[in-house]
Amino acid sequence: MFEQLGLIGCGLMGGSFALALKRAKLVKRVVGYSKSPSTTERAKQLGVIDVAAPSALLAVSGADLVLLAVPVAASEATFKAIRHGIGAETLVMDVGSTKSDVIEAARIGLEGKLKCFVPAHPIAGKEVAGIEHADADLFTGRQVVLTPIKATLRSNVQRASQVWTGVGAQVSIMTHEAHDSAFAAVSHLPHLLAFAFINGIAAQPECQQFLDLAGPGFRDFTRIAAGEPTLWRDVLLANREQVLRQSQAFRQSLDALEALMSSGQAAGLEQAIAAASQLRGPWRLGSSTESPDA
Amino acid sequence: MFEQLGLIGCGLMGGSFALALKRAKLVKRVVGYSKSPSTTERAKQLGVIDVAAPSALLAVSGADLVLLAVPVAASEATFKAIRHGIGAETLVMDVGSTKSDVIEAARIGLEGKLKCFVPAHPIAGKEVAGIEHADADLFTGRQVVLTPIKATLRSNVQRASQVWTGVGAQVSIMTHEAHDSAFAAVSHLPHLLAFAFINGIAAQPECQQFLDLAGPGFRDFTRIAAGEPTLWRDVLLANREQVLRQSQAFRQSLDALEALMSSGQAAGLEQAIAAASQLRGPWRLGSSTESPDA
Repeated sequence: MFEQLGLIGCGLMGGSFALALKRAKLVKRVVGYSKSPSTTERAKQLGVIDVAAPSALLAVSGADLVLLAVPVAASEATFKAIRHGIGAETLVMDVGSTKSDVIEAARIGLEGKLKCFVPAHPIAGKEVAGIEHADADLFTGRQVVLTPIKATLRSNVQRASQVWTGVGAQVSIMTHEAHDSAFAAVSHLPHLLAFAFINGIAAQPECQQFLDLAGPGFRDFTRIAAGEPTLWRDVLLANREQVLRQSQAFRQSLDALEALMSSGQAAGLEQAIAAASQLRGPWRLGSSTESPDA
Repeated sequence: MFEQLGLIGCGLMGGSFALALKRAKLVKRVVGYSKSPSTTERAKQLGVIDVAAPSALLAVSGADLVLLAVPVAASEATFKAIRHGIGAETLVMDVGSTKSDVIEAARIGLEGKLKCFVPAHPIAGKEVAGIEHADADLFTGRQVVLTPIKATLRSNVQRASQVWTGVGAQVSIMTHEAHDSAFAAVSHLPHLLAFAFINGIAAQPECQQFLDLAGPGFRDFTRIAAGEPTLWRDVLLANREQVLRQSQAFRQSLDALEALMSSGQAAGLEQAIAAASQLRGPWRLGSSTESPDA
């Protein structure tokens, strides 16, 4: 049980975390801050936070748990702003989709407080942003990846695991390099491809007719193309090396399929499609057999 | 109201059509045929068809409505097999995802009976195949595209429209060229990209770890990669010219995004993502404002 959550960024992720923590009776009081005062006020009106703080530093003062739920590009400035409010016993986490860049920001911004920081990535979200969509169930049954660094206190990793398990999530622990490589593959590249696909349609004069005819396959394939532009700009830039590497793997695979099509190799094409179908068919969300080792 | 549906191919599409037609009381009797006698027998046991025919020709004999629901690559042989059973008043339709190749098959296979044929593409499906999954609701609220040719009797286009409207679908009419170009863009290319993406993951040693970490975005983006290999082999080969053309448009768009990433052009990248997000965000399935003109 934490006394006080200092929440920096009262959006979908931060708000959902506050609601989930309250529902699980894991926190007594939530003090929140957002860059926009009207957002902070709205979070208070909605009961997501109990106290609206006028600054990030004041939001974390006295908090034994701090969550940064800001755009990853704002991490360094936010760490610097709160550094002097973080006590020796405070647990600090973020929710960024990329970890190497946030860790670099923490090294610069947190200095001596780095041991308090447990980098976290909850694999959860919605295509809608904002405190209005905050949802105490957002993390239920979802995975949360923790990527502690050498400086991170082991006890803080355990506390972080307990917090996320307490709000219904499954915790995995890995290095930030492995995290960023895996998420380039299964999340960032799909977003890049979906954006590229939609822009490829948009560039054609028949765009509207095409969209009118699109079916359920298109709907699901392109859902992630509706993602938030600033968030995905930051993710794709922060993890660009890994994303571009994954894109190369994809392009090789696309080249191979197109070569089979061009040369009319029906058997080879069927085999390549069957390989994809057999790998994807049985896959289910959250069916990982890995257990957290924290 | 039709007296007798001759159904060639008792799979998901054909079975669903028979069930939907019966429920709408648009047909008195369904005579079915599948290449595999056990499938035909199973369709009869499930009540999808009333009579199991021992050949395609016998299935269409006496039918005033014929539906070909076979793999598109089997179209020509099927048309040839049923040609002599088709009466002057019979309405013949198919359900193929590609239209130019099926029309070519009909020209060769149907000869003088070509006026009976109304090429049809119901934009509906499931990731599971087979008569066991036949569903009277499969076409409810979905679009069906008809691509009549010069030889098609106008009255047959009207009857075809009425049949599909009768089972709850919305009918659009266009040329087969426009159809194949549009579906290359919004259906066939997404499938190709999803297959390539999964195979790109599969080629990496960390494949299993990647899949364990994949979230809801991956789930939706790759759902279509579980498609049936023989069906998609045929579609990608039959419409390869259009699909490869669409892939070029996609690659140009991907190149542009990657160039923005590589050079760190944050504003340009955000703008390109925003363009995709703004186009995809408000899109909804079946929200086309076009009305059928049949």
